[in-house]
Amino acid sequence: MNGAESLIQTAFAAGVRVCFANPGTTEMPLVAALDSADGIRAVLGLFEGVCTGAADGYARMTDSPAMTLLHLGPGFANGIANLHNARRARSQIVNVIGDHATWHVAADAPLTSDIISLARPVSAWIKTPLSSKTVASDTAEAVAAARKYPGRIATLIVPSDCQWDPADGPARPIASPSAPAADDASISASAQAIRKHGASSALFLGAMAMREGALITAARIAAATGCSLVCETFPSRIERGAGMPIVERLPYFPEQATAALARFKTIVLAGAKSPVAFFGYPNLPSSVVPQGCDVIELASAEHDVAGALDALAESLDASKRDPAMASAARPSRPTGPLNAATVGQTLASVMPENAIIMDEAATTGLPFFTFSQSSPRHTYLSLTGGAIGQGLPCATGAAVACPDRRVIAFQADGSGMYTVQSLWTQARESLNVTTLLCNNRSYRILQVELARAGITEPGAKARSMTSLANPEIRWADLARSMGVPAVRVDTAEALAVELERACATPGPNFIEMML
Amino acid sequence: MNGAESLIQTAFAAGVRVCFANPGTTEMPLVAALDSADGIRAVLGLFEGVCTGAADGYARMTDSPAMTLLHLGPGFANGIANLHNARRARSQIVNVIGDHATWHVAADAPLTSDIISLARPVSAWIKTPLSSKTVASDTAEAVAAARKYPGRIATLIVPSDCQWDPADGPARPIASPSAPAADDASISASAQAIRKHGASSALFLGAMAMREGALITAARIAAATGCSLVCETFPSRIERGAGMPIVERLPYFPEQATAALARFKTIVLAGAKSPVAFFGYPNLPSSVVPQGCDVIELASAEHDVAGALDALAESLDASKRDPAMASAARPSRPTGPLNAATVGQTLASVMPENAIIMDEAATTGLPFFTFSQSSPRHTYLSLTGGAIGQGLPCATGAAVACPDRRVIAFQADGSGMYTVQSLWTQARESLNVTTLLCNNRSYRILQVELARAGITEPGAKARSMTSLANPEIRWADLARSMGVPAVRVDTAEALAVELERACATPGPNFIEMML
Repeated sequence: MNGAESLIQTAFAAGVRVCFANPGTTEMPLVAALDSADGIRAVLGLFEGVCTGAADGYARMTDSPAMTLLHLGPGFANGIANLHNARRARSQIVNVIGDHATWHVAADAPLTSDIISLARPVSAWIKTPLSSKTVASDTAEAVAAARKYPGRIATLIVPSDCQWDPADGPARPIASPSAPAADDASISASAQAIRKHGASSALFLGAMAMREGALITAARIAAATGCSLVCETFPSRIERGAGMPIVERLPYFPEQATAALARFKTIVLAGAKSPVAFFGYPNLPSSVVPQGCDVIELASAEHDVAGALDALAESLDASKRDPAMASAARPSRPTGPLNAATVGQTLASVMPENAIIMDEAATTGLPFFTFSQSSPRHTYLSLTGGAIGQGLPCATGAAVACPDRRVIAFQADGSGMYTVQSLWTQARESLNVTTLLCNNRSYRILQVELARAGITEPGAKARSMTSLANPEIRWADLARSMGVPAVRVDTAEALAVELERACATPGPNFIEMML
Repeated sequence: MNGAESLIQTAFAAGVRVCFANPGTTEMPLVAALDSADGIRAVLGLFEGVCTGAADGYARMTDSPAMTLLHLGPGFANGIANLHNARRARSQIVNVIGDHATWHVAADAPLTSDIISLARPVSAWIKTPLSSKTVASDTAEAVAAARKYPGRIATLIVPSDCQWDPADGPARPIASPSAPAADDASISASAQAIRKHGASSALFLGAMAMREGALITAARIAAATGCSLVCETFPSRIERGAGMPIVERLPYFPEQATAALARFKTIVLAGAKSPVAFFGYPNLPSSVVPQGCDVIELASAEHDVAGALDALAESLDASKRDPAMASAARPSRPTGPLNAATVGQTLASVMPENAIIMDEAATTGLPFFTFSQSSPRHTYLSLTGGAIGQGLPCATGAAVACPDRRVIAFQADGSGMYTVQSLWTQARESLNVTTLLCNNRSYRILQVELARAGITEPGAKARSMTSLANPEIRWADLARSMGVPAVRVDTAEALAVELERACATPGPNFIEMML
């Protein structure tokens, strides 16, 4: 057994079941070693951002670690943007990077670079094995580091000689510590504040507080106390729809967020940080918490949030209260031209039971969240870190994780172009992903942001920087060129028909919506 | 005038004529400011790797700085791979990254990350202005840093408040120091070695030694002394074809490189480092210099290489010798199926006078270099840093730099997928780029490398990691979906006809070659 085989077999023993790979020469022993562990599925991406985004989607849906296999510094760098999103989503990811042989680094060959400096901003844990003999134990450590609740990114940089030299065999898995409980003092302070302020208080939910059990507990607390449930603007994953609590989503723009929170005297943080603006604007503060509103932390994202909510419910005599749940009530099917409202309403009216919605639809996506609150039960994933190009890869990984569910990639055109190679992987793996592509031929959000920056009459060059109209991208053709069946629609009626058909058809498909 | 306008106008005054941009919210004042300097062309890329690769191509062809405009850490990260190549090519690039407002960084908003850690591996110079008042002088410094001979990457990180706050006006350009002359001792040692070993000596050429004047001087030295001319495996830019010296290219694989150098007792380095293997392999050394062969540095890449070669020629009484030049003699047009040999021969037989060849054709590209040594005069660019995905962007930037020349992107399929969005920019800007796409439906080089690693019978997963066959990418359709006219060819005859037609047709076009 060589170092590479010891790595793959250790990862399998520690629970890794998939490797999203875009390997190169310095990973050849690892590529060969993939065949030494039957239980690890190898999924090829034609660009590293596809692999890291898919790992994020897989980890969000399974709460178990996904592995990536990447090529030296530049290959890893191509995956950084989606690792940034994954870090913000607290996803469990083990990156394995092949590096030059230890003795070849000093030669400063063309592909040599400072991998650690690149890895640090997105990795909670980084290590390079000392020799092929330590690869197995370092791999066990990497998986344990990634599994640390709720999830982290671990990056293992493996010189190629450490892959091909002999090893002693796989290492045993290392247990990750369980999540620490929230302080009693935090629980009692939170209970006191909610009891005092009732309907003027909010539970602000993030991270694992948006999973089924924690949400139901939060809804019991709301039923008992009158407090509101508000979640982060960009949930890593939230369970919602009929039979789940209705949770208000914090608006994106800071003035709107502050207005939405204006009715609260107290905000209790459950798995979330105190809310801040996505970007800084002149004359607006970073914090969107209204003046005079207290913020109390019940539990951070790194605490056992579900347990903290249970304890809070207990303290508020809410544990046995019936939570208010969304009834089953799809919106009607709209008619007419496609725009953000008709697209959101159509999707909410047609989406199948148990769908996974990956929302990177940007400006076109906003109305959907409200339209779908009583749609059939579904999982909603969003762009956690703001690094665009996450939607198609993340949907790809979610479909690998959940082969029995329909994944809907609700996708803006500008961000869709970043990692469009994902479609090929969807075709190759016959994944059940329906992409709803919003073709508005612009970076619409930037047109909004130009206006917000006071630039009401941008010059020709500035306008050109936000337009995708020349030439127009023929998205359906693009999808077909990578093996994904595609149609183009112009009306809400046609969208409903095609979406219903697409969701009932196994494998990937693609609907280009002309907005 | 605000900070952003002071930046753009300072850059223009310092010689910047193009900005390859993929901006976001934190760059809005800079986007608006582009219209404040008529002389800076703004070119939109739909992925940051397109922008940085295009900046590299532009800088290689003009020896002047290209600017990029990128969005925070993740946007910059998407451009790192091609900046890695640009760093190896010693291209002049000024990256401008918009960052959060200074007072918003502490909020740790979703897009916050450690930009400096990401920038350091590819940047020789990094700075963040202290305020809007220093943006102009920092920009002048950045351009001067990028211009430092032969070229470097400077990264200026500009918080958004430093863009929108008032500035005092543009700053005056800062002169870059001229390249230092090589030591007299290096020149005389080099002269002595070449004089002693004659036909057993080689001038090993890199960086600026591959430009016209330096190459002719090198050829005079060869004519006078019998020494050989050998260049780096991956030239950033070399002038060649009829009327230029024939230069031998160092082979890629280390055992072949060592064999090619076996006839030399002395290698004199002119703008190149002592040659090393691209990757380390078991039982092969990093250096490819044969045992017993001396290596002498005439001039590093940072020295005035052309001046050093002049001095060497003087010292060897070679300054007035007639150099041996390639005669004009295209190969005949081959017939039959497409393979590396027939593709290389057809391209060499058809390419127009004064073409720019960007070669990222990988395994399919190898025979072309020899076939084209007596083709019409042309410029040859290659993948300097090994970070694939460089070809299409670099060709795009070269076409922006040289609107009167035909650029031929000789492109492998695997690496072409990395930055395929380049085609859209070529269409938008009506660039004279002909892409010759080698569709062999595989990462062929990795199949070779698997075999070299002793894995002669790879398992199903390992085989799958090197195959692009399922599904097959329909490249001509893909190109058309982004607005580039495209055809598909199966024979050398058809390739010659289509290539001739494509090179005579203004604007971009695309030929998918079925290998």
